[in-house]
Amino acid sequence: MRNQDFDDFFQYCQERVTKKLAVILTKDNDDNNQLNGAISYSVLNGGKRLRPILTYATTEIFGELTEDTDLIAMSVELIHAYSLIHDDLPSMDDDSLRRNQPTCHIVYGEALAILAGDALQTLAFAQLAKLRASPEVTLKLIGCLAHAAGPEGMVNGQAIDINSINRSLTIDEMELMHRKKTGAMIDACIIMGAIATGKANQLQLNALRNYGELIGLAFQVKDDILDVIGDTEIIGKKAGSDQVQNKATYVKLLGLEGAIKKASELHKSAIEALDIFDYKADRLREIADYIINRKF
Amino acid sequence: MRNQDFDDFFQYCQERVTKKLAVILTKDNDDNNQLNGAISYSVLNGGKRLRPILTYATTEIFGELTEDTDLIAMSVELIHAYSLIHDDLPSMDDDSLRRNQPTCHIVYGEALAILAGDALQTLAFAQLAKLRASPEVTLKLIGCLAHAAGPEGMVNGQAIDINSINRSLTIDEMELMHRKKTGAMIDACIIMGAIATGKANQLQLNALRNYGELIGLAFQVKDDILDVIGDTEIIGKKAGSDQVQNKATYVKLLGLEGAIKKASELHKSAIEALDIFDYKADRLREIADYIINRKF
Repeated sequence: MRNQDFDDFFQYCQERVTKKLAVILTKDNDDNNQLNGAISYSVLNGGKRLRPILTYATTEIFGELTEDTDLIAMSVELIHAYSLIHDDLPSMDDDSLRRNQPTCHIVYGEALAILAGDALQTLAFAQLAKLRASPEVTLKLIGCLAHAAGPEGMVNGQAIDINSINRSLTIDEMELMHRKKTGAMIDACIIMGAIATGKANQLQLNALRNYGELIGLAFQVKDDILDVIGDTEIIGKKAGSDQVQNKATYVKLLGLEGAIKKASELHKSAIEALDIFDYKADRLREIADYIINRKF
Repeated sequence: MRNQDFDDFFQYCQERVTKKLAVILTKDNDDNNQLNGAISYSVLNGGKRLRPILTYATTEIFGELTEDTDLIAMSVELIHAYSLIHDDLPSMDDDSLRRNQPTCHIVYGEALAILAGDALQTLAFAQLAKLRASPEVTLKLIGCLAHAAGPEGMVNGQAIDINSINRSLTIDEMELMHRKKTGAMIDACIIMGAIATGKANQLQLNALRNYGELIGLAFQVKDDILDVIGDTEIIGKKAGSDQVQNKATYVKLLGLEGAIKKASELHKSAIEALDIFDYKADRLREIADYIINRKF
């Protein structure tokens, strides 16, 4: 992998995890219902696969990619897909467009969308239960995923987000929300990749956690910027929707220039957090660049 | 436990699992949101705890109840609680009353209800990750739970159910739906309890699986009967709601007398399935009696 440039690496990871996901998801609907259709529609629709890519890139610091890496990459993407379906629901963010396609509930109805999300969460844990790592390590990873996805992590962040509409959040409150809503899972993608190799020491895990936290926030600041300056067609979801919902965003609290400066600072700190690693962390450095420079 | 009568055993198990659940659920809301409130409201509201009781009763066939038994009992109840919150949502069954109290989305709104359900599913897997059984056994149990709760089990059954409204299901289609929607998890409560002890042989597991399948269906037939002849106040949810939604039910397909006969036959077969066990399976026999005789 080392000699491919970043775009190739990115595409390689995207295709690798998507192929693996397609194998477990494309099953016939044999029960008079469209559940499997709703699940496949939501997972196999051209997502960026940023989370699996973080897992692959972290694993490469310590060794070769294995089938276990794929299972971890799949599990984090399945959690992400479930969270997007539920976030898009009318009672949540009420989004009708995602990745330039109608959202799951628009195509399959609300009930099936809720169930598809529920099923995807179960499938995420089911993938981890298949790991070939030692059962001890596997259980540690399952604990990691549960901590990041559950009521102390992602779901908590989403609850704070829901509660913040039409309320004024301070920048600290907003940051706490993002640390949980997107940060916890981004952190988990990286840490799970490292733990599974069995080769990461505590100093390295701390550095990776620090990096994960910083790019998680950078990702969110960039999202807020794109919501203001992005093009609906390119970002694949409705631009300006944060403003319509009167949500707290970095742009709202810091201004556009302030937000751009913040993103740049977070990016710089994330790169510095990787200083203890040699060239093997270059992919993670490139991912930090990608997060800041992306157009969607 | 042997000398207590069944009501005492039932109450003992109810209190035991509820106390354990209360410990993991009553945490302060420190993040400007009501997520923990919505979660606790939905779990600690006086459910029957039938699923945990099945786990306890099955474990007792093979040995003592342990902290692992509690964790399994908690995990199945957490899955059950999550499924009820989501089933009650306006886009699903649209129920406003559950256990004589307003349903979660009525009190906390739809968004938080969806998130509370999501969080409870995560918590279910998180409990299993804490088991003290060998990691191999633990992973087997996590696989069991995922299989029973996910797109091949409970969620699939719920999807068939949603799709069946205003359609005519044959009795076979309806039975398949129930086998998945409620049967798969009832089966899991029993099988997980048995596997965790490490003492159940294949013949015994088959007998338990057979018993579980039969009481699962008996439970559903009885539910359909109660929906017709039950009293809203006693059953704790709106009587007659199946008819309003034009759902396929055993009463609709077999008539009230036919349904009562069916429940009685299933009960008899369930008791017979336990013939290979001695008195140690008496609690399971009594649970079969309870399922048939219950008023709510």
